[in-house]
Amino acid sequence: MALIIQKFGGTSVANPEKIKAVAARVMKKAREGNSMVVVLSAMSGETNRFVDLAHQMQDHPDPREFDMLMATGEQVTIALFAMAVKAAGLDAISLLGDQVKIKTDSLHTKARIKEIDTDLIRKYHNQGKIVVVAGFQGVTEDDHITTLGRGGSDTTAVALAAALKADACEIFTDVEGVYTTDPNICNKARKIEKITYDEMLELASLGAKVLDIRSVSFAKRYKVPLHVRSTFTESEGTWVVEEDQQMESLPVSGVTYNKNEARITITKVPDTPGIASRIFSPIADAGIVVDVIIQNTHMDALTDMTFTVPSADYDQAMEIVAQIAKDINAESFSGDKDIAKVSIVGVGMRNHTGIATTMFKVLADEGINILMISTSEIKVSCVIEEKYTELAVRSLHDAFGLDQDNSKKTV
Amino acid sequence: MALIIQKFGGTSVANPEKIKAVAARVMKKAREGNSMVVVLSAMSGETNRFVDLAHQMQDHPDPREFDMLMATGEQVTIALFAMAVKAAGLDAISLLGDQVKIKTDSLHTKARIKEIDTDLIRKYHNQGKIVVVAGFQGVTEDDHITTLGRGGSDTTAVALAAALKADACEIFTDVEGVYTTDPNICNKARKIEKITYDEMLELASLGAKVLDIRSVSFAKRYKVPLHVRSTFTESEGTWVVEEDQQMESLPVSGVTYNKNEARITITKVPDTPGIASRIFSPIADAGIVVDVIIQNTHMDALTDMTFTVPSADYDQAMEIVAQIAKDINAESFSGDKDIAKVSIVGVGMRNHTGIATTMFKVLADEGINILMISTSEIKVSCVIEEKYTELAVRSLHDAFGLDQDNSKKTV
Repeated sequence: MALIIQKFGGTSVANPEKIKAVAARVMKKAREGNSMVVVLSAMSGETNRFVDLAHQMQDHPDPREFDMLMATGEQVTIALFAMAVKAAGLDAISLLGDQVKIKTDSLHTKARIKEIDTDLIRKYHNQGKIVVVAGFQGVTEDDHITTLGRGGSDTTAVALAAALKADACEIFTDVEGVYTTDPNICNKARKIEKITYDEMLELASLGAKVLDIRSVSFAKRYKVPLHVRSTFTESEGTWVVEEDQQMESLPVSGVTYNKNEARITITKVPDTPGIASRIFSPIADAGIVVDVIIQNTHMDALTDMTFTVPSADYDQAMEIVAQIAKDINAESFSGDKDIAKVSIVGVGMRNHTGIATTMFKVLADEGINILMISTSEIKVSCVIEEKYTELAVRSLHDAFGLDQDNSKKTV
Repeated sequence: MALIIQKFGGTSVANPEKIKAVAARVMKKAREGNSMVVVLSAMSGETNRFVDLAHQMQDHPDPREFDMLMATGEQVTIALFAMAVKAAGLDAISLLGDQVKIKTDSLHTKARIKEIDTDLIRKYHNQGKIVVVAGFQGVTEDDHITTLGRGGSDTTAVALAAALKADACEIFTDVEGVYTTDPNICNKARKIEKITYDEMLELASLGAKVLDIRSVSFAKRYKVPLHVRSTFTESEGTWVVEEDQQMESLPVSGVTYNKNEARITITKVPDTPGIASRIFSPIADAGIVVDVIIQNTHMDALTDMTFTVPSADYDQAMEIVAQIAKDINAESFSGDKDIAKVSIVGVGMRNHTGIATTMFKVLADEGINILMISTSEIKVSCVIEEKYTELAVRSLHDAFGLDQDNSKKTV
């Protein structure tokens, strides 16, 4: 008998029939003797409906009131889900963020969980109930409703798993797990059986959408075993766990890409101390997140500064850069939206030499020019022309042997 | 400067445009220096949507989970409303039943308010905020969300007015106020300027739908001045207040009717002690509310028992009666759904003789047969054949002079 957290997203609970199907799945686990906590998102479509309503009221909806509105989505789902369980013969109770006492800070629309009270959940478990918790929401010390932002229901599930010392935290999605790369552009992509928190963090931050980065980071901190699996099949998905010896046999675990970045270059900037700060402070002040930064120094004490920003922020960033270039006497500046970032990730990289070199060679062999490079201990990212994205991903996937069954590695 | 409660129902907040219009109206009062509390219902249509969803999950939705679901309707409206106020330049904050601490008993789907904490509302008033409260909902001592049942938002408004000792509690509806009778069937119907709690209670219980009986009864107990008025015009509506001397000049204040009752007769029942209890206990046990009861005694120690029940409960009541009739050796039983109850109401009745007689004569003059009669201190009800309803209402309205302007009475 185990304590299991199961989180289902909006597409898994999109209508009454799907809610019943999910309830049946949870009840099967409960009937096997497990104590179940189910974390649910809003029915898919509801979030967009609320965002639309809010923007009809106010150009920039008040964050506190926005959370008040958004939190109703999960409330609907948990109530319907508890009814479905009861109709099918087991007992259940739905709980809101503030009923569980999922205490957060006051950063409305992207609050962070500070503390979770487990008493109420344990009480209902002792009464044999399936506990159904609204994902994505919490409550401040002052009793205001907050929401946790993008991927918030994943965070709720992981935080509950940590607080309850759950045996597993299962995140159900519409894919079978984490893949070696995007199956949509590479038909040799394989489901990964086991991956480390750090690798998953890199993959999530590099654009893999299956898990939100915040929940992975939470899971890592509290050593919560995450199981990413499909709502629609019974097969095992991908376990995200602590690193162990066996996991390092292959240097690269996955290839990922991100087409939603744009590159900006400021040319021939006087290379004086503090110049980076003068360039990037105004951009940061505008709330724009800069990703890769490359600085090339010329012989004549002039430097070129190249960096990437999210495509959505490109126009605003270019306006700011125009002003900066003038202020610092740069020769010129330019931008390019048709770029992509392709990355390889793997904890095994730490014990293998020449991984980056292999990557550069693979790209070169395909005639793909590398525009920028960025590395960390367990990943190498190359910015390339966008049109080569799929080719680059497939070539790297092949070159690092990801198409082969490496299950011995992940046992 | 006054403290004013304004309650708007679902049709008044049915979409973003209407919410903005209502917000503008509330803000006008706020700008005049009044402290405002706004109580809102769910957007019209939402309640039905939720009821439908719930019944797709469970034949008899769990009451606790049903309340969890239903309470989201008002939560959406108050959040959107607060945004609308903020967008238009004033400050506002939305509050849920459990945030205000509207404490109720545990009777889910029809909970009763036990206690209201006014501290939070006063705090926000002191900060110059318009306080927007979710109608229809409360919270139990154990932190479960409850709803107050039919007319629940009216009850919330009146209870808040009582707790806050508000100067007025304004209930906005889609009609201009309380009318001397239904304008849809009598074009001489006039808006009443002032009516007593007791009269309003009789009208509400007799089928007038403008105010829920529970909120009127609450208003009476705590002497809350109620103002029933239209969302769509600026004109004064009807004040529901304590009785004063000037109000008794006319014996009848209003004529009302109810077509949603059915009549059941059990014929030749042995007239023994306790027979009424043997008949009505099983009906009450089935949750069916019996309204008018008439007992005719025959010479031969047999009696006929006639009573009315809501039409919706007619079939179930007839099944129960079939069994009862057999058990008590009644000769036969019969039912009739084509009846209506027409009533005249007025506190002035107490000081005028012959009001009931006049009513009977008016009906007789129109050739309308009276099937049952029921009276209280301030009302007379006659059950008649349904097809005569409109004729009866118009004749009584004329006969008691309700078509004339009696504003001197209501100054």
